[in-house]
Amino acid sequence: MQLPPSQLRVMLAQRPTGIPQEGKDLVFEAGAAMPTVKDDHVLVRNLYMSLDPAMRPQMSIRTYVDPVPLGGTMRALTVGEVVRSIGQFSSGDLVIGPGGWQEYYSARPRELQLVAVPEGVPVNAALGILGGTGLTAYFGLLKVGMPKEGETVLVSGAAGATGNVVCQIAKKIVGCRVVGIAGGPEKCRFLINELGLDGAIDYKNEADLNAAIRKECPKGVDVYFDNVGGDQLNQALRRMRTFGRIILCGAISGYNKLGTGEAVGPGIPSEYVASMVSSRIRMQGFIVTDFLNEVPSAISELTNWLQTGKIKNTETVVDGLANAGKAFRGLFEGSNTGKLTVKIAEPSVRSRL
Amino acid sequence: MQLPPSQLRVMLAQRPTGIPQEGKDLVFEAGAAMPTVKDDHVLVRNLYMSLDPAMRPQMSIRTYVDPVPLGGTMRALTVGEVVRSIGQFSSGDLVIGPGGWQEYYSARPRELQLVAVPEGVPVNAALGILGGTGLTAYFGLLKVGMPKEGETVLVSGAAGATGNVVCQIAKKIVGCRVVGIAGGPEKCRFLINELGLDGAIDYKNEADLNAAIRKECPKGVDVYFDNVGGDQLNQALRRMRTFGRIILCGAISGYNKLGTGEAVGPGIPSEYVASMVSSRIRMQGFIVTDFLNEVPSAISELTNWLQTGKIKNTETVVDGLANAGKAFRGLFEGSNTGKLTVKIAEPSVRSRL
Repeated sequence: MQLPPSQLRVMLAQRPTGIPQEGKDLVFEAGAAMPTVKDDHVLVRNLYMSLDPAMRPQMSIRTYVDPVPLGGTMRALTVGEVVRSIGQFSSGDLVIGPGGWQEYYSARPRELQLVAVPEGVPVNAALGILGGTGLTAYFGLLKVGMPKEGETVLVSGAAGATGNVVCQIAKKIVGCRVVGIAGGPEKCRFLINELGLDGAIDYKNEADLNAAIRKECPKGVDVYFDNVGGDQLNQALRRMRTFGRIILCGAISGYNKLGTGEAVGPGIPSEYVASMVSSRIRMQGFIVTDFLNEVPSAISELTNWLQTGKIKNTETVVDGLANAGKAFRGLFEGSNTGKLTVKIAEPSVRSRL
Repeated sequence: MQLPPSQLRVMLAQRPTGIPQEGKDLVFEAGAAMPTVKDDHVLVRNLYMSLDPAMRPQMSIRTYVDPVPLGGTMRALTVGEVVRSIGQFSSGDLVIGPGGWQEYYSARPRELQLVAVPEGVPVNAALGILGGTGLTAYFGLLKVGMPKEGETVLVSGAAGATGNVVCQIAKKIVGCRVVGIAGGPEKCRFLINELGLDGAIDYKNEADLNAAIRKECPKGVDVYFDNVGGDQLNQALRRMRTFGRIILCGAISGYNKLGTGEAVGPGIPSEYVASMVSSRIRMQGFIVTDFLNEVPSAISELTNWLQTGKIKNTETVVDGLANAGKAFRGLFEGSNTGKLTVKIAEPSVRSRL
């Protein structure tokens, strides 16, 4: 394969204040250097890139990893095609790795993982329902939330990448009453008609979120899976049943307030904290890598559910790395349904998987 | 035994605003009627009464039980002496039951539990270290907090009834580094000199609580046992280690704001909630009755630890039901060290246990 002399990469130029701006915070560099490839490195050509809300805090602060360094390429997991074969990898192999917002990258073999997606499932599902997103939903719901059949599960960001998988597992696999919170009537229709949920709450058009949760979850909420934080977390907390569990997965509502000097959200009022004692609520944060040992069995189960039609893959694919900045902003405006990926390049015919 | 024609009882006359006032909120009724004793009821003469911070919310709001009804006798667990024998009870038996703030009460046998306290331990320990307080410490620390040897345990209200038992179990039984937060130099000396803790923080004289926690817990906090809520909870949350556990037992700092219209505390800022995801913090409320099946084995272990000198009983006994109102206020002013009980009457010579 003929390699180009330079590539497109997206660099973090400064720590954003609020919503990241293209040209200021995210700088698109068209003539960036190709990666240097050491003897023990594999060269990979990116095909699909994952866009995740958690990328936003990593632009501003230390989370469970250091923030992206200024001048550094924006981080992302990608599905790519091996260009330079080494070790267990052959040219054309599809791999998941820390590819970043760029066309090519080099990595040590141990940073890469061969991609296997079942028949009929798009290759980029390896970044979504069969990748970090699906695993986050799987472990968060099943291992942290521990729902039981017949319990009521409430999910915020329910039409999003993680949320839609949480909803499907809770509904179709565990057999819960499942209610999703999402923004706008279209997403709510998706939750009811496509995912078969028991209820959907449109937080953008709902004057009284608490009353809406009470209506859709008349027995109260046993498990709340929180992708949003802020007021949605607070209103869910008020409606938890005794021994309820709150899974803290993310808090997208506050991410774009990072760097503004404002509080990222309203916080949890002291009365609601006090209610956690009387109602014996458990609230627990997690990240997907806490369950590394169980990843193979989880992927195998997710694949089985997907192949047998118990759950489905939902995705929004944006074409072209040049559109990644707009697509990333869209995450916070709610423009995606399901997993959001950017298609960077077509697979070559040599892809063998 | 000659019964008096009337008794002293303490009634909740109105829902307090802030600190409960004697004569307004808590009305002492000297000529109250003796309890009516039905055929299937036992009559009990109260000897010791437990005073607990959790009584304060029960004066104002529904918690895990309904609030005390207006005009009703204030609730309390008591150690009493059986006056009218029935069923498994003999006259003179010592029993724990829902005796309330009064001299005599009647109850069904199933509401009563025979008291057995080991040699050398005061009878009122049945309300404290061998009763609800000790069990709260035991279950909260061991079953909810799950500390491991060598971990750092931080305890608020550390010189209080539950806190001092938590500190002792964590230090002497589990083998943790234990740091207590308490109000005033005298209590801090008690924590270091009497309980043998590794550190003590005087929140009343500490300008920067967060810095003090950092100094005393240089590796961070693995388990935080919270009796206080509010700012102490928030500062502890900021110092939690990855996979840290926060045991929500009570929130005494806010109880006297109930009924004032003010927020009971500062709430948890959104940034700290967000940190629960990246640090994978578990925050969990509980009450002692969640572990009813394990009570017998827990009491047996606590008794063994007490008899072998591994942990010690610490108590403040106030003499006379007439002084209960002042003693109750003292709970919120930090005037007790260890368990606070009120001595209502001397045991008769007939007490057989």
